[in-house]
Amino acid sequence: MSTSRRPGPSVRLRITEVKGAMRTQHEDRVVTEEPLEIRLAEPLLPPGRVSVTMRTPGHDFELAAGWLFHEGVVASVDDLSSVAYCTDVALTPEQELNVVTATLRVPARRTVGARYGGMTAASSACGVCGTETIEEVFATLVGRVSPAVGPDLAWDVVRRMPEAMRAHQRLFDRTGGLHAAALFSPDGDLLVLREDVGRHNAVDKVSGQRLLSGAERGHELLVVSGRIGFEIVQKAVASGVAALVAVGAPTSLAVGLAERAGLMVLGWTRDDRTVVYTGAERLVT
Amino acid sequence: MSTSRRPGPSVRLRITEVKGAMRTQHEDRVVTEEPLEIRLAEPLLPPGRVSVTMRTPGHDFELAAGWLFHEGVVASVDDLSSVAYCTDVALTPEQELNVVTATLRVPARRTVGARYGGMTAASSACGVCGTETIEEVFATLVGRVSPAVGPDLAWDVVRRMPEAMRAHQRLFDRTGGLHAAALFSPDGDLLVLREDVGRHNAVDKVSGQRLLSGAERGHELLVVSGRIGFEIVQKAVASGVAALVAVGAPTSLAVGLAERAGLMVLGWTRDDRTVVYTGAERLVT
Repeated sequence: MSTSRRPGPSVRLRITEVKGAMRTQHEDRVVTEEPLEIRLAEPLLPPGRVSVTMRTPGHDFELAAGWLFHEGVVASVDDLSSVAYCTDVALTPEQELNVVTATLRVPARRTVGARYGGMTAASSACGVCGTETIEEVFATLVGRVSPAVGPDLAWDVVRRMPEAMRAHQRLFDRTGGLHAAALFSPDGDLLVLREDVGRHNAVDKVSGQRLLSGAERGHELLVVSGRIGFEIVQKAVASGVAALVAVGAPTSLAVGLAERAGLMVLGWTRDDRTVVYTGAERLVT
Repeated sequence: MSTSRRPGPSVRLRITEVKGAMRTQHEDRVVTEEPLEIRLAEPLLPPGRVSVTMRTPGHDFELAAGWLFHEGVVASVDDLSSVAYCTDVALTPEQELNVVTATLRVPARRTVGARYGGMTAASSACGVCGTETIEEVFATLVGRVSPAVGPDLAWDVVRRMPEAMRAHQRLFDRTGGLHAAALFSPDGDLLVLREDVGRHNAVDKVSGQRLLSGAERGHELLVVSGRIGFEIVQKAVASGVAALVAVGAPTSLAVGLAERAGLMVLGWTRDDRTVVYTGAERLVT
């Protein structure tokens, strides 16, 4: 395989940094996030998809082999005949490097995927890539996506939100193992805050609270502790918020989906500083 | 439903804290992690399992409703007829509070689970709980689990590992969005380090590297950045390491599986301090 088409572990982006009253534009790096599909080929059986994971490209054969080892599918390297990128003629180069096929010499020592849904047969033209993933998610969200030009957002409101969220985290100090998500009104009032061991669960709980309480929705701001992966942006877009504000960094795929959906994304929001990845023209300083 | 049986958001554990040359035993709290199964009941169809997620108990109806909303299954609260804990007579109280059934007034607006494997029919006696999850994982790992009494581990080796890992993280400083996992020899030599947007991927890559290179395994130590959830302990046990050392905190289910499998777990390992959750008798200070 050629290494020249391999996506790197990080990508460069043009960002807007706000620090106190100062606003600058420059280049920055975000970590690359791309789907990896693992296919398993057992003797005398057609290959089937056993896992799709969002990962940082690089060491993909190790990732597939380690996953199969941890799942009990292979017991040692002797069980493996080959681990290789997919070479379906129907795949684009970008897709090709996101599909790894592990071919076994022996039947799988354990059936994987049975617990939460069985192994899916891979269609001949099957393959995943970030751009496709974005379009696929986007297609399911039609009618819900944030307006291409959303409302303006005041820096004086944004800068206070992470600290306000932190002050309301009931469990954090006792266990140190929790993520938080909170919904704020456009004026910066805290509407609901939830904590969970999984950041995606905290976001689900926040939206679920609004849904079940029959609350009117309108240009709320979603604040999350930690980092922003693709899944968090997917939920933010689906919930119809105007902006996503995080204490940590976003990934490449997260920024890609946010751009496509018109969602404003701010990372590294703490200590009177923020980095605007999408929608900087809407932040009023 | 009765609230008295509901597991709390955190649980108390007896831990051993090591700080410099001082060793103390006391009680501490870890965040509760338990599986939640979401079932969907559409008009005229039997309920089916659409998701299992590891979550912190509490606000479970919100979690289910928010998840369904974000996945596009429901468009508003009007689509929902009820959201309730499961009441199968076959379920134990512990299981009952880990299964939520959402009943719809209308057909689902989008089919979920189709992408990575279809909806699984829930058996009548189906239900999940932490204890069961541990036993299920444990059963697949027989022959691989860490020895009940593993080798001793020197505090002088452990205290240097997180810093050594940090010093070798190639990408961290540039993006701030990466997790790291590293394997050390029992003497504290760094064997392999991998970074990824997903902590579980970094652990898979580390094990995959050892597998594909045909390296001899023997009482290595796995070090991870951040927190320790159930899935990380599952992989650590499957890979046969002697100890799991983290910079962050473990969850209740992570500690439960580690105890069951004889894996030594150390959290909060930084600044010359560590908290030993399991296997403290093996740490030599």
